[in-house]
Amino acid sequence: MIKLHRTKAEKYKNPRVWSDFNSFIRRNRRRFLVRQKPRIIWFTGLSGSGKTTLVDALNKVVLSKGYFTKVFDGDVIRTGLNHDLGFSMEDRTENIRRIAEVGRMFLDSGLVVLCGFITPTIEMREMARNIVGPDRFVEVHVNCPIEICELRDVKGLYKKYREGKIKNFTGFDSVYESPENPDIEVRTDLWDIEKCTRYLTRRVLRKIKFSWT
Amino acid sequence: MIKLHRTKAEKYKNPRVWSDFNSFIRRNRRRFLVRQKPRIIWFTGLSGSGKTTLVDALNKVVLSKGYFTKVFDGDVIRTGLNHDLGFSMEDRTENIRRIAEVGRMFLDSGLVVLCGFITPTIEMREMARNIVGPDRFVEVHVNCPIEICELRDVKGLYKKYREGKIKNFTGFDSVYESPENPDIEVRTDLWDIEKCTRYLTRRVLRKIKFSWT
Repeated sequence: MIKLHRTKAEKYKNPRVWSDFNSFIRRNRRRFLVRQKPRIIWFTGLSGSGKTTLVDALNKVVLSKGYFTKVFDGDVIRTGLNHDLGFSMEDRTENIRRIAEVGRMFLDSGLVVLCGFITPTIEMREMARNIVGPDRFVEVHVNCPIEICELRDVKGLYKKYREGKIKNFTGFDSVYESPENPDIEVRTDLWDIEKCTRYLTRRVLRKIKFSWT
Repeated sequence: MIKLHRTKAEKYKNPRVWSDFNSFIRRNRRRFLVRQKPRIIWFTGLSGSGKTTLVDALNKVVLSKGYFTKVFDGDVIRTGLNHDLGFSMEDRTENIRRIAEVGRMFLDSGLVVLCGFITPTIEMREMARNIVGPDRFVEVHVNCPIEICELRDVKGLYKKYREGKIKNFTGFDSVYESPENPDIEVRTDLWDIEKCTRYLTRRVLRKIKFSWT
C-alpha cells in the first residue's frame, strides 16, 4: 500500500470533495487504479469559437494514449439532465452548477473530464472551479473574435440571431466576460486546428500524467 | 478490432442512450476497455431497510474482484447536485430523474453504478429504468417490514417522525409501493448481512461479467 505525503491543510481544504467516498476506497487509491490524475478540462469561449471541435480532437489523442476520459456534450446534457433549463442568466448558472457537480462525481471516480460550454461569466467559472475543487479545474480559453465566429457560424445561430429568431445570444444581448488568467489559451483565429490540438495535448498531458507524488 | 453482431432493432431501440457518444468511441468499445458490462444496480426499500449497508458491502466485494464501480450516496447527492430539492413528491421525482440521468452518463463511460434510494413509487422506478435503458437497469428490492425498520432506526428518523418533527415520511404519510417483479430481492429481516451480501454478489456478478457477445 502506498502512502501519500500530504499535509492536513491540503487534505481538508476542500472537505466536500473528500467526503464523497465511502470509507474504504479513497480518491487516492482510485488514482492508482486508473493511473492518471483526474482533472476537468473546461473549455470556455463564444459560440462557434471551436470548443466542441477541440474537445473532440483532444479526446481522440488523450484516449489513444490510454487515458480514461469522459466528454460532456452540451447538446446531450441539455436534452437529458438539464432539459428543464432555458438560456436566461439564472438557468445558465444552474446549468453550469449541475454540470460541475456531475463533473466532480466523475473526477472522484478517477476519470479525466473534457467539456466545452460557453460559461459566459467569470462568476460562473469561479463557481464551477469551487465545486470541483480548485486544484482539479483546468480552464481553457478558446479565444476567437466574435466577427470570425460569425463568419464561420457552424450551427447557423448567428444568422438566426440577426434575423431576430433567437434571443439571449452570447456576445450580443447576453454578456461574455473573457477569462483574465486562463490556465491554457488557444487562438483559433490565428492557429489551425492541428496546431491548437498539438499545443493543447502538450499542456494537458502534463497535467493529467500519473505520478507518485 | 472486434465487430459485434447486433440487429438494427436492438441498436436503435433506445436512441437517446446511443446518441451520447462522440462519433469515434462507442459504448461497446468502452466495454472492451473496462472489461465489464455497465449496469446500474438500483436498491429500493424503506428507510432503515439496509440499502446503504448492502450497497457498501456489495461494492467492497465487486471492487475487490477488479470491477470499476461508482457508488451514488443519497446524502452526498442531496448536498451537492440536488441541494435545491426537498421531499415533496415532485421533488422526489426530480431527484430520481437527475440521478438516473447522471447514472446513464456513468454507464456510457462503462462503469458499474451502485445506488440506494428509497424510490417510493413504481412510476419513479419505471422512469429511472427508461432513462438509463431497460437492459442496463437492475432493480434490487431490499425487503423488510416497516416495524423492523422502525426497531432498527439507524438514523433516528422514525423517532423524529413519531415526535412530529419531520413530515412526508415514507411508509407513513408518504406512500411506498413495493416492486412487483424486482430483478433481485433480499430479505434483510430474515437473513443476516453476510447471507444478503453473498446472495447479492452471486446474482450481480452474473450480470456485470464481461462477455464477447
